[in-house]
Amino acid sequence: MTRRIHVALLPSQIDPPMGVAIVVDVVRASTTLVTLMERGCVPILLATTVDIARRAAARDRTLLLIGEEGGLPPEGFDYGNSPADLARAPLAGRGAVVVTTNGVPAIHAAAGAEVVLVGCLRNAASVATAAWDAGGAEGRITIICAARPSGFGLDDAYCAGVLVERLMRLGEVELSDAAEAARMLALAEPDPRRLLGRSAAGRYVTRLGLAADVDYAAGVDTSTAVPRLGHHFSFVTEPVEQ
Amino acid sequence: MTRRIHVALLPSQIDPPMGVAIVVDVVRASTTLVTLMERGCVPILLATTVDIARRAAARDRTLLLIGEEGGLPPEGFDYGNSPADLARAPLAGRGAVVVTTNGVPAIHAAAGAEVVLVGCLRNAASVATAAWDAGGAEGRITIICAARPSGFGLDDAYCAGVLVERLMRLGEVELSDAAEAARMLALAEPDPRRLLGRSAAGRYVTRLGLAADVDYAAGVDTSTAVPRLGHHFSFVTEPVEQ
Repeated sequence: MTRRIHVALLPSQIDPPMGVAIVVDVVRASTTLVTLMERGCVPILLATTVDIARRAAARDRTLLLIGEEGGLPPEGFDYGNSPADLARAPLAGRGAVVVTTNGVPAIHAAAGAEVVLVGCLRNAASVATAAWDAGGAEGRITIICAARPSGFGLDDAYCAGVLVERLMRLGEVELSDAAEAARMLALAEPDPRRLLGRSAAGRYVTRLGLAADVDYAAGVDTSTAVPRLGHHFSFVTEPVEQ
Repeated sequence: MTRRIHVALLPSQIDPPMGVAIVVDVVRASTTLVTLMERGCVPILLATTVDIARRAAARDRTLLLIGEEGGLPPEGFDYGNSPADLARAPLAGRGAVVVTTNGVPAIHAAAGAEVVLVGCLRNAASVATAAWDAGGAEGRITIICAARPSGFGLDDAYCAGVLVERLMRLGEVELSDAAEAARMLALAEPDPRRLLGRSAAGRYVTRLGLAADVDYAAGVDTSTAVPRLGHHFSFVTEPVEQ
């Protein structure tokens, strides 16, 4: 079946039905989640606020606290939202609760899709194959860019375009205007590191002294990990007050 | 002074202060307005609804009714929103009231800017020069894509990119992520006709039998007309009920 591919350049541009959703926050949350899955971190719980994350870790002391606020780890966190650091950390068999500014809320916004996958450059081919095989109503696949608080993010649009390219290798597709634009960005810049480095997100992370994360996020097709909501990660559920 | 250039890929992505605004609805409203100015149409009044347009024309019988609803001229209108037709129509010294689905509302959304200009491919170099010379607080220039009811429009983002390129010829600029993405689109496709023809707006207009408008809108730097709000066009004001 022809796959109808749309890119929501911002979470507000989600146009249901989404079919299969792939959420992208390449610098850095989706790259972090792919890394956590790859490293054997189980379970992976997402929290939409730092407070929710702290309460979850207080209820279950075995959980690592991972994430950022303003780009850096909040006080008491075990790790920041740094995929380059996490790639070297001892995580196998450990559980974690993860909170980030844009990526986690974007995944939350996508939670109404039939299937929710996490995509980045590192798992580009694998997440494209997983989305293609998952099917979805009318063959729809929606790639959702987490973007930035101030709007459009060049890094995520570019990554979405790389995913569109990978999907096009798998069969016949119809592209929305935004999917076509994203694809044009991917084809226009063959060097992902250069593109990410020039994006506002890449420059921000570099100013924080974390350029190694930009290098790491720019690796393409280096991972086969495809985090799927309800399978490899879920959202923190808080106990109901009695 | 360095100009800080942002592209609002959708009117909802306007991030004040806009400084100098250039509103783009290349297929077709902004191309139509440039054509009306070029052809000597005076005054040019914009109406945000078909009813407002009809009432304005009822109050002043000399006004031509120009515009579209669903892509075609509403009943009783003198001309559709067809720049290719209007380029051949006898308009000199005639006044007109214009209503369109996306372009006019986008200009309305931009009306809080210091200076509001209308841009398209045909007046690309001229509108860029006018925006540059107009200045604006902190050197800001915001290019606003009218986009489509369903969201992002490839045609407008591409045209915005051509305008970014023209602005870059005039001096030092800083580009937002969206301005950089639009520029990449413009550089990636040297043939504007092909790009517009592949956009959803271009395909829609072509299905209506109006492919001549897509050809016409794809002309680059063919016009020096730069419609400016309050100078060359304004919004219909309705008389207050007594």
